[in-house]
Amino acid sequence: MRATTIHAPGDIRLSDVPDPALSAPTDAIVKVVAGAICGSDLWPYRGAKAITSGATVGHECVGVVEEIGGEVRDFRPGDFVIVPFVHCDNTCAHCRAGVQSACVNAGHTRSGQGEYAVVTQADGSLVKTRGVPHADLVPSLLTLTDVMATGWHAAVSAGVRPGSTAVVVGDGAVGLCAVIAAARMGAEKVVVLSRHEPRQQLARAFGATHVVADRGDAAISAVEEITDGIGADAVLECVGTAEALTTARRAARPGAIVGYVGAGHGVEMPVRPMFEKNVGLVGGMAPVRRYLPDLLDLVLEGAIDPGRVFDLTLPLDKVAEGYRAMHERRAIKVLLQP
Amino acid sequence: MRATTIHAPGDIRLSDVPDPALSAPTDAIVKVVAGAICGSDLWPYRGAKAITSGATVGHECVGVVEEIGGEVRDFRPGDFVIVPFVHCDNTCAHCRAGVQSACVNAGHTRSGQGEYAVVTQADGSLVKTRGVPHADLVPSLLTLTDVMATGWHAAVSAGVRPGSTAVVVGDGAVGLCAVIAAARMGAEKVVVLSRHEPRQQLARAFGATHVVADRGDAAISAVEEITDGIGADAVLECVGTAEALTTARRAARPGAIVGYVGAGHGVEMPVRPMFEKNVGLVGGMAPVRRYLPDLLDLVLEGAIDPGRVFDLTLPLDKVAEGYRAMHERRAIKVLLQP
Repeated sequence: MRATTIHAPGDIRLSDVPDPALSAPTDAIVKVVAGAICGSDLWPYRGAKAITSGATVGHECVGVVEEIGGEVRDFRPGDFVIVPFVHCDNTCAHCRAGVQSACVNAGHTRSGQGEYAVVTQADGSLVKTRGVPHADLVPSLLTLTDVMATGWHAAVSAGVRPGSTAVVVGDGAVGLCAVIAAARMGAEKVVVLSRHEPRQQLARAFGATHVVADRGDAAISAVEEITDGIGADAVLECVGTAEALTTARRAARPGAIVGYVGAGHGVEMPVRPMFEKNVGLVGGMAPVRRYLPDLLDLVLEGAIDPGRVFDLTLPLDKVAEGYRAMHERRAIKVLLQP
Repeated sequence: MRATTIHAPGDIRLSDVPDPALSAPTDAIVKVVAGAICGSDLWPYRGAKAITSGATVGHECVGVVEEIGGEVRDFRPGDFVIVPFVHCDNTCAHCRAGVQSACVNAGHTRSGQGEYAVVTQADGSLVKTRGVPHADLVPSLLTLTDVMATGWHAAVSAGVRPGSTAVVVGDGAVGLCAVIAAARMGAEKVVVLSRHEPRQQLARAFGATHVVADRGDAAISAVEEITDGIGADAVLECVGTAEALTTARRAARPGAIVGYVGAGHGVEMPVRPMFEKNVGLVGGMAPVRRYLPDLLDLVLEGAIDPGRVFDLTLPLDKVAEGYRAMHERRAIKVLLQP
């Protein structure tokens, strides 16, 4: 099959690789209808994370079940499915506690930017739609595999409550989805830190009531002004760098939680300033499967439209251009069509 | 008056200092009935925190109101009062949100190891007993000024729930009080990490069901065995060193919260291992005043007896010996009688 492979920083190719095969009776193979490039794919692309040269990449996709292992009970070929980027059995103690991203049988989508992807623990991982969804819905369904669920996790982790003020740090696809989540959970003020005009516009369309284009001290001053000097009730940190985490911590009012979903490679948080303000840090890798059924309902009933984060759609053979566009911030998020 | 002063690491003296005076109409002066040495007093004593030579020390005391400022309404001379180590107006936005330790008018007890202490924001800070309590109750009341409320804050921050497994890192007075809190909140298993026999005994008396005398990897293995490989539902970190925070993070099950109340001077937490497990870090300087009324009721009805952490009582002029005893871990906690 054709699938995207990475060979070195900046070196993305569409390659011919062996067709995927079932390796366990709980596996399924999904024919990809749409895949996506994730902000976290840029870490290895930019040389910030180790690369296995020639490895297939892409952990976000939706598609149609092509083949199932002998123990798969709940899906059959032809089902249209949403594939969480972390696969899970949805029965272990961690899954039952709602932390499916820590499933004892966790697996990962590895060729979402290709023609086919293997899903381990198919019964536990996949969620299907009734029938094949209209093409207009595919982008929003695709966000449920990662970024929408991740933005939602930031809001859940931060404890966004009705009537509160939520600050979203980050205007990437996850940050924009976090705006959707905060607004949906009833935050009265949703403040997004963004200096990019198209992202600001989309944030407002998603429910942001305030846009702060500053960074550092100036951003904190702006948040203080918006919150009458008190600070944010909840902060949703959707970047994962030390600078962003520091801004998030400083924007929080005493006693507030920074819900964080950025990967945080090599980042350390100084404990003392958190201690003095009683600012907590809660979050991590999103348990996508936990939120997926509810988010699917919201998409299907038209309550949320996160698919608008895709501002560039390319055929799969243009994947390298898709990476360049995201790397250069010319695109918020890229949808790939095999 | 006579009050404890610090002059250099290891140099603690009982000195003659000017009598305290009201400096604002919201102040009160309390004649100290009992003061205490806190684990955090050992930071400067051990040279781990800057010292202002000759400064009075001691932030834990109970006593009798001696004098009040013109705007103090709720207290009068003769009232027996418990003095939270952070004073607060109990009316500002942070106080109303339950984070009295971040009060916009916060003050601190500065001569609790002396004959008199000034309390700023007396109406907001102090809690009084009905009449003068029996001497037997004084040690427990004294713990409410800091360590019992701080252990309680660890348990609240960690989200201890009925039937859960709580791991307490630290067997100092705060850790032991955290055991009381976890047991009181209904944890089915309360695991304390302690290698000191007298502290282990007291922890068991306070409700610990398991004592783990190991550290590092061996401690984590022990916790895994106790929790069937799942990890702790809640971790109460009551030390504040990098080693203790690391142990706490590792002991937590995915999705659990480390409730931390150690001061964390210079400590940094790596974000990535928290991210992978969805382990949160919540807590900080305890909002003592928030918990004080409820904890007072528990003490008065005999439901908790945290005063047992005081295993050495000394007259005030033996304060230097008290510091030595705590520094050398010969005493868990020292009560001082002016």
